[in-house]
Amino acid sequence: MSAAVDGCVQPTGPGLPGTESRALVVQKFGGSSLATPDHVRRVACRIAQDRAAGRRLVIVVSAMGDATDELLESLRVLNPRAPAREVDMLLATGEQVSIALLASALWALGCPAVSLTGWQAGVRTDRVHRKAQIAAMQPSRVLRELEAGRVVIVAGFQGLSPDGEITTLGRGGSDTTAVALAAALGADECEIYSDVDGVYTADPRVVRSARRISIISYDEMMEMAHLGAQVLQIRAVECALVNDVTIIARSTFTAGPGTRITEVGAVEDHSLARAVAHDRHVARLALCGVPDRPGVAHRLFAALAHQHINVDMIIQSQSRNGKNDIAFTVGSDELPHAEETARGVGRELGAEAVLAEDGYGKVSLIGAGMASNPGVAAGMFAALADAGVNIEMISTSEIKISCLLRREVVDTAVRAVHDAFNLGRESPLPGSTRAGGAVSAQGRG
Amino acid sequence: MSAAVDGCVQPTGPGLPGTESRALVVQKFGGSSLATPDHVRRVACRIAQDRAAGRRLVIVVSAMGDATDELLESLRVLNPRAPAREVDMLLATGEQVSIALLASALWALGCPAVSLTGWQAGVRTDRVHRKAQIAAMQPSRVLRELEAGRVVIVAGFQGLSPDGEITTLGRGGSDTTAVALAAALGADECEIYSDVDGVYTADPRVVRSARRISIISYDEMMEMAHLGAQVLQIRAVECALVNDVTIIARSTFTAGPGTRITEVGAVEDHSLARAVAHDRHVARLALCGVPDRPGVAHRLFAALAHQHINVDMIIQSQSRNGKNDIAFTVGSDELPHAEETARGVGRELGAEAVLAEDGYGKVSLIGAGMASNPGVAAGMFAALADAGVNIEMISTSEIKISCLLRREVVDTAVRAVHDAFNLGRESPLPGSTRAGGAVSAQGRG
Repeated sequence: MSAAVDGCVQPTGPGLPGTESRALVVQKFGGSSLATPDHVRRVACRIAQDRAAGRRLVIVVSAMGDATDELLESLRVLNPRAPAREVDMLLATGEQVSIALLASALWALGCPAVSLTGWQAGVRTDRVHRKAQIAAMQPSRVLRELEAGRVVIVAGFQGLSPDGEITTLGRGGSDTTAVALAAALGADECEIYSDVDGVYTADPRVVRSARRISIISYDEMMEMAHLGAQVLQIRAVECALVNDVTIIARSTFTAGPGTRITEVGAVEDHSLARAVAHDRHVARLALCGVPDRPGVAHRLFAALAHQHINVDMIIQSQSRNGKNDIAFTVGSDELPHAEETARGVGRELGAEAVLAEDGYGKVSLIGAGMASNPGVAAGMFAALADAGVNIEMISTSEIKISCLLRREVVDTAVRAVHDAFNLGRESPLPGSTRAGGAVSAQGRG
Repeated sequence: MSAAVDGCVQPTGPGLPGTESRALVVQKFGGSSLATPDHVRRVACRIAQDRAAGRRLVIVVSAMGDATDELLESLRVLNPRAPAREVDMLLATGEQVSIALLASALWALGCPAVSLTGWQAGVRTDRVHRKAQIAAMQPSRVLRELEAGRVVIVAGFQGLSPDGEITTLGRGGSDTTAVALAAALGADECEIYSDVDGVYTADPRVVRSARRISIISYDEMMEMAHLGAQVLQIRAVECALVNDVTIIARSTFTAGPGTRITEVGAVEDHSLARAVAHDRHVARLALCGVPDRPGVAHRLFAALAHQHINVDMIIQSQSRNGKNDIAFTVGSDELPHAEETARGVGRELGAEAVLAEDGYGKVSLIGAGMASNPGVAAGMFAALADAGVNIEMISTSEIKISCLLRREVVDTAVRAVHDAFNLGRESPLPGSTRAGGAVSAQGRG
C-alpha cells in the first residue's frame, strides 16, 4: 500500500555508532498488521527501515490475525469453562509465534533481532488470570539486547505472576505492554500501529468530512476510547498518562504522521468541541417504582458490579409518592445477564416493573473544558433537534456530552453534530463554541 | 477403538487417600495421539481412568499432530535460515498448546490438572538450540502439584538454558523428557504411548507373522531404535538405561500390555536372535583410490561430522598399490550434502573417483550376545542367499548384524531372516541359534 513500507532499506548491521544518543522508540503492531506471513514481512521491512534511519527499537506484537480466536475455539470444544490459568497458558502461545516469526523475518533482511516472551522481557503482573494488571517491569534483558545492537521483539498481552504463572492482560493488553515498556525504558516515544492512520473527528465511514486529528490530550483520548474508539485501548492511555509517555497512533500500511496523544499542555488547540464518538450497541434497563430510601441504588449497582457488568449512563427520576424510577444502560451483549440481575434486585426491592430493551445507540461530543461552557451542550441538543432526532437519556462529564438515541438514528445524529460544530474544518476559530479544532474516535461500527 | 479408552470413568476427585503409597507413573503421549480435539478428549479419558484407579500421574505431551511441521512451514516462508534460537521460540508453542488443551479437557471430566511448560517443570538444558541436552531436572513444582492431588501435564521436547532461553531437545525430545522426569521423580514406571502397541519382531506390514515382544533389554532396544524402529527414540532409551527407568511402550488406542524395556537381567529370554529391523532409506558413497596413509579416514569422517552428517556403515578395503577404497553409508536425505563434502575431501586427497548412489536399504538382525555365536551370522547370510538376495556391505556389533542391500529386496530379506530364525514363534527353544524368542522394530516403511 505504501512506498515507505514496500521500498525496503537494508539496515547497516549491528553495533551502529553512537548507540546512546540514538532515539529509543517502542512500536506496537496489532494482529491485523501481522495477519499473514506477507504482512509480517512488510512489518519487518518497516522496522528495518526505521533501524537503518538510526533509531533503537523495541517492538511489541499481538497474536497474528485470528490466531487468538482460533485457539479459543479449539478450547471451547474441549471445555467451555476451562480454568483461566489454562486459558492464559494457551493464549500466550499466540504472541510467542508472532515474535519468533517477526524476529526471523528481520534476520532475513539482515537486521539483528531477538524475540522475548513476556516473562523474558520482565513483565511482572498480579495473579489475576485473563485480566492481569502489570505490577512491575524488569527490563534488564531488554536493555542488554538493545546494547548489543539488536531490535528487541516482545510478546505483548502476557506476563508472569509472582507464582511463576503465565498471565494475560486482557483486552488491549498489547497496547498496555507497549506503553509500560516505553515508560520503564524511558523511551522517546511509543508508536501504536493499526490499520487506521490515527484518531478522527468522527468515524469516516459515517461522516465523509471527518478529519484526522494531529494531537489530542490523554483525557480526551480516554473519554473517546471509553466511548467506542477502537484505535487505542483505554488502559494503555491511562498507563501513558500516569507515566507521561507520548503515544503516536499510526497506520502500519501508510506513511502518515498519525495522531499524537500527549499531556494537555502540549495540545495547542484549545477549542472546546474536538470529536464525535458513537456506539451502536447499547441496551436500556429501568426499575420502575422502587421505594425512595437510602441504599436502593447501592443495592442495584453493587449487584451488577458483582456480576462484572459495566453500567454506563444512570438516571434516577424525581421521587413521587415515595417511589423512584432508576434507568441505566449497558452494552447490548450484557443485556441478558443484566436483566436477570435487575429482575432479582427488583423483586427484592418490590419494584413495580422492570423494563429491559435493546436497540439503542449513544452519540458523544468530546472536548476538554466543555463542561464549563453551557453553549456546547445547547448547540448539541439544537443540532439533534434540527435533524429530528429524539434524545432518550443525557449524561455529561468534564470533557464530554453523551446522548442515548434509538439505534437507527445514530448515523444521522453523528453527522448532524459533526457538521454543527464544524469538526471537519482544518483551522478552528479559537474560543468559539461552534468551531472546534476537531478530534474524534471511530465508533464500533 | 478400544473399550478401555471410550468407556470413560469419572475420577474420584482431589486428595485421594494414601497419596504417598500410590504408584507414581510418568506417561508420554505423542503427536499422533493428540492429532485432533477428539483425540485429546480420548487421551484425557484414559488419564482420568488411570487416576481413578489410584495412580499419581505426570503426563508428558508432544505438539498436536502436524503442528510442528505447520510452524516450520510458516517460518520457512519468512526465513529458511532462521536462527536456531528463534526456531526454538516458535516450536515450543506447539507443546504449550497441547498441555493447555489436555489440562482443560481433564477439568471437563472433573479431573484436577495443571499444565506446565518445560521451564515451569524444571527441565534445565545446555545452550545448544534445536538439539539441547537435558543438564538437570528441578521438579519441585511438579512435586508440589502432585501433592495437591493434581494430574501434572508437562510440555515435552523443551527446556530452559542457563541464559534463560527456551531450548528444544531435537528429535525424540518428548520421550527423553518423560524418561528424565521419571528418573528425577523416582517414578515406578515410564509409559510411552504411540499408535503402535509395542515393539515387534519385525514390521508387521512386511512380515505377517511378526509378534509383539513382551520384554526387551535397553541394549537391544537402543540398537533397534538406531536401526530404524520408530516406537522409541534412542536418546530416551539411553537416558532410561543410565537412570535405570523401566519404559513400557504401549498403544494409545488399545488396552494391550505393550513392550517392557528394562535392564538385561530382567529379560528372561536369553535366546540370541530377537528381532529384524530394516531401513529403506540408505545411500552409499565411496572414495576410490585414496592414498593408504595415516589420517586419511580421519580427514574424511571429521569433515562429515563437522557437517553434522551421520555416517552409518564404513568399510575400508585392503590396500593395493598404496591406494585404498573407503565406502560408507548415510541416510538418503543426507546424500546431497554428504556427496558435496566427500567430493571436497576427495579432491584434497587426490582420490581417483568419488561414487555416490541412493537406492539402498539395510536389514539387521538383533539380539544380545549374538557376536559371540558365529552361527547367527552364518544363518543370516544363508537365509539371504537362499532368498536370492545379494549383500552389498556387512557391519556387526555386540548385539546386531546389519546387511546393506538394494532397496527393492528389503521386504524379501526381512521375511527370509524372520522366518529362518523362527522369530514369530511364541515359545523359543532356549540356546538354539535358529529359534529366537523374537523382538524387533518397525522399519521406516
